[in-house]
Amino acid sequence: MSLKLNCDLGESFGSWTMGMDAEVMPHIDQANIACGFHAGDPLVMKKTLALAKANNVTVGAHPGYPDLVGFGRRTMNCQPDEVAALLQYQIAAIDGMAQSQGLELNYVKPHGALYNDMMKNTELRQVIMQAIADYHKPLALMLQSTPDAAAHKAEAEQAGISLLLEAFADRCYDDDGKLLARTKPGAVHTKEKMLAQVEQLKATGTVTTVSGNTLKLDVDSLCVHGDNMAGVQAIAEIRALIS
Amino acid sequence: MSLKLNCDLGESFGSWTMGMDAEVMPHIDQANIACGFHAGDPLVMKKTLALAKANNVTVGAHPGYPDLVGFGRRTMNCQPDEVAALLQYQIAAIDGMAQSQGLELNYVKPHGALYNDMMKNTELRQVIMQAIADYHKPLALMLQSTPDAAAHKAEAEQAGISLLLEAFADRCYDDDGKLLARTKPGAVHTKEKMLAQVEQLKATGTVTTVSGNTLKLDVDSLCVHGDNMAGVQAIAEIRALIS
Amino acid sequence: MSLKLNCDLGESFGSWTMGMDAEVMPHIDQANIACGFHAGDPLVMKKTLALAKANNVTVGAHPGYPDLVGFGRRTMNCQPDEVAALLQYQIAAIDGMAQSQGLELNYVKPHGALYNDMMKNTELRQVIMQAIADYHKPLALMLQSTPDAAAHKAEAEQAGISLLLEAFADRCYDDDGKLLARTKPGAVHTKEKMLAQVEQLKATGTVTTVSGNTLKLDVDSLCVHGDNMAGVQAIAEIRALIS
Amino acid sequence: MSLKLNCDLGESFGSWTMGMDAEVMPHIDQANIACGFHAGDPLVMKKTLALAKANNVTVGAHPGYPDLVGFGRRTMNCQPDEVAALLQYQIAAIDGMAQSQGLELNYVKPHGALYNDMMKNTELRQVIMQAIADYHKPLALMLQSTPDAAAHKAEAEQAGISLLLEAFADRCYDDDGKLLARTKPGAVHTKEKMLAQVEQLKATGTVTTVSGNTLKLDVDSLCVHGDNMAGVQAIAEIRALIS
Repeated sequence: MSLKLNCDLGESFGSWTMGMDAEVMPHIDQANIACGFHAGDPLVMKKTLALAKANNVTVGAHPGYPDLVGFGRRTMNCQPDEVAALLQYQIAAIDGMAQSQGLELNYVKPHGALYNDMMKNTELRQVIMQAIADYHKPLALMLQSTPDAAAHKAEAEQAGISLLLEAFADRCYDDDGKLLARTKPGAVHTKEKMLAQVEQLKATGTVTTVSGNTLKLDVDSLCVHGDNMAGVQAIAEIRALIS
Repeated sequence: MSLKLNCDLGESFGSWTMGMDAEVMPHIDQANIACGFHAGDPLVMKKTLALAKANNVTVGAHPGYPDLVGFGRRTMNCQPDEVAALLQYQIAAIDGMAQSQGLELNYVKPHGALYNDMMKNTELRQVIMQAIADYHKPLALMLQSTPDAAAHKAEAEQAGISLLLEAFADRCYDDDGKLLARTKPGAVHTKEKMLAQVEQLKATGTVTTVSGNTLKLDVDSLCVHGDNMAGVQAIAEIRALIS
Repeated sequence: MSLKLNCDLGESFGSWTMGMDAEVMPHIDQANIACGFHAGDPLVMKKTLALAKANNVTVGAHPGYPDLVGFGRRTMNCQPDEVAALLQYQIAAIDGMAQSQGLELNYVKPHGALYNDMMKNTELRQVIMQAIADYHKPLALMLQSTPDAAAHKAEAEQAGISLLLEAFADRCYDDDGKLLARTKPGAVHTKEKMLAQVEQLKATGTVTTVSGNTLKLDVDSLCVHGDNMAGVQAIAEIRALIS
Repeated sequence: MSLKLNCDLGESFGSWTMGMDAEVMPHIDQANIACGFHAGDPLVMKKTLALAKANNVTVGAHPGYPDLVGFGRRTMNCQPDEVAALLQYQIAAIDGMAQSQGLELNYVKPHGALYNDMMKNTELRQVIMQAIADYHKPLALMLQSTPDAAAHKAEAEQAGISLLLEAFADRCYDDDGKLLARTKPGAVHTKEKMLAQVEQLKATGTVTTVSGNTLKLDVDSLCVHGDNMAGVQAIAEIRALIS
């Protein structure tokens, strides 16, 4: 299985810094860039795009709910037309800024609560797919690979868009193919387990679940986190493993 | 002189309505659409673009300072790179949303304090021109026609962009070609004087200043206001005059 | 039954006007004043407080979710400590501004989705009650009178606060004592039915439900709406009925 | 001269952390707490107040322009009534939250561009003084001690408020008693020079200016910065010097 690495970047805001973007960028393939609604601001976006370009990294829009203080992590009960509009606004903003630096926006990965809500809620997922399909250029939707991946692909085909399926390097899966809740023991892997999970995924296209079962996952990209130096180091090791 | 009509539209926000967009749109040529920083929100922008399309109206970006509560009417002392980024973000947002409705963004008209600051401050004007030039597609800058229009055109040519020069139908000009301050008597024309000013401008390319002098103005478009039914009616009469 | 009238006021924001506050204020007893998170801004709040003072109207805080573009009408999945803090911030802001005009803040009525969520969700309601109890001065909580009013009063007593129970003049009740969903026929009363409902409530402390049953409601205040001249006129007629 | 130490705190926002509040608090006397307009959010404010209480630190409001992305560092050309209202709103918010933790708000120190504008602009300074005077409880205004301190005290007396005069431990003064612009060499002292400046101020009530002159300054409090561990260490050394 050929795997790419994606990471959430551009999450600083004004005078507040978040993430080690400059350190992470050399190791990844795909940058999910915040678009100003939950994180990021115009100047941060511009600098993050320049950093992606300098490192030859593919850029994706990382739109979120309009909730800066909540970092887009709180579900907001938006109407379908509100969701479509806030997605297209954020996608358009990063798209035009990317093109102005000679970059082509490649995909959309919803952020935080919008991502989680999309995975749980079929209607919302279809609204998101349609909003991306209605955008004036082809963009893939990145979502979590689960045992429902085939059904999600069928929905995407129906909407006329393509999917990028991602798995999480450092999270333990349950038997349903969902991430084990963070509150449960073992939910976040040690570095050793994380590297083992990546290796297994690359070699066999499977992960071992919390109960020891083997789960097949169709995966295009691994989501990694570069919040601190330990995270950056882990990304570098994953990079070495999958290259 | 061939004159177009431009109007600020899409200035509603969430549950707050402003302007009579549906009534104004049939009478104008160019819609300056707010981009979410001083007014407008993604859904309002989407609806305003649809309205422009239905009325075959050319669309322009109407970006402002990030000051919702002040409606972009308060000068903010932003750094050049901040101004460039906030312009490109707003331009990109409306551009991508316009394209998704089959419309091509045509020009940029800064809003409120950003517009006024641009007219007064050469450095800021050049930052704005460069930001538009650096955008990935050609867009004109709309600014106020004054006796300095030739100098402004030279600046624009230097930056590699084109200008759209606008005059104000309902405002009295002073001898320097500036608008008479709103605090002064006679600053805002009666409808009769407004129509006379439009007629004179169309026929001779001049306006009569507050002191009775004749001032030559190079004008592409007239700025009109549709805040209420009287404004809409005035626009309709101006439309009839210049067609 | 002695009834007061309460109305949501101070919902303008910056250049956007909402509601007919000056027309409504003379007819009501209690002004629920927006606190800047879903509507209102510092200057609007100051003017609304002055208007309440001039009309001898009791003032209450009307805090909402931090969602300006959604007008606080979209449920946000906030943590309990976030809810407590955003309530206390908004209450404190209006409280200090009220005192600076010689007014005493009297109660808290959550707005929009926060109100609806509070009515449905016991845990959230208790978080809200505790946040009000933890405020440094006694404030009542205004919520909807339902057949659960006795249980709500017990909760409030437990928290150490008092309740103000409100009913809706213009809405039809179902047999459970909930408001009939706005999507259902007859959900919003005609003026005649509204006045009849008010009269019945005042005379007998009951309302007639959608199915014709009689429902007893413990009511301190009637919620009225002054969005337009018809609304203001209706408020005046209700005022005349209950005085 | 008896000197207190004041520091800007509570400048985190949502998921973004700024400053080492827990490390700074034990060393200072006065906490200038951000009020949500340029930094801080309700939950951050609540936690910062709790930290101040635990360390027996006096609390002041640190209100700023409504400019989160610019961190309140960009002058905004607000009207006097807008400035008064945004100050009173922010003061009230922190005041009510402080009282709810058994703390009494003691003073107001404007932040960033609002502070700088206040020092330069007499009209704005008087608007700020009047806004504080109009607040319902006595609060001092903290501003920079300059050779104009006597004039500022006269203005404050006129408005009916008291002043707290602050000096900067780590900044070099010019002969006019202003801070040397940060762009100039020697504008920010080395730690040695900073400690010497503090010692001289405590012993003699003077600072040595950039040109070597001795300038008398009337000082109640020293402004210190705790952005990183070096800053915290410097605060601890200043604390030791002045105690």
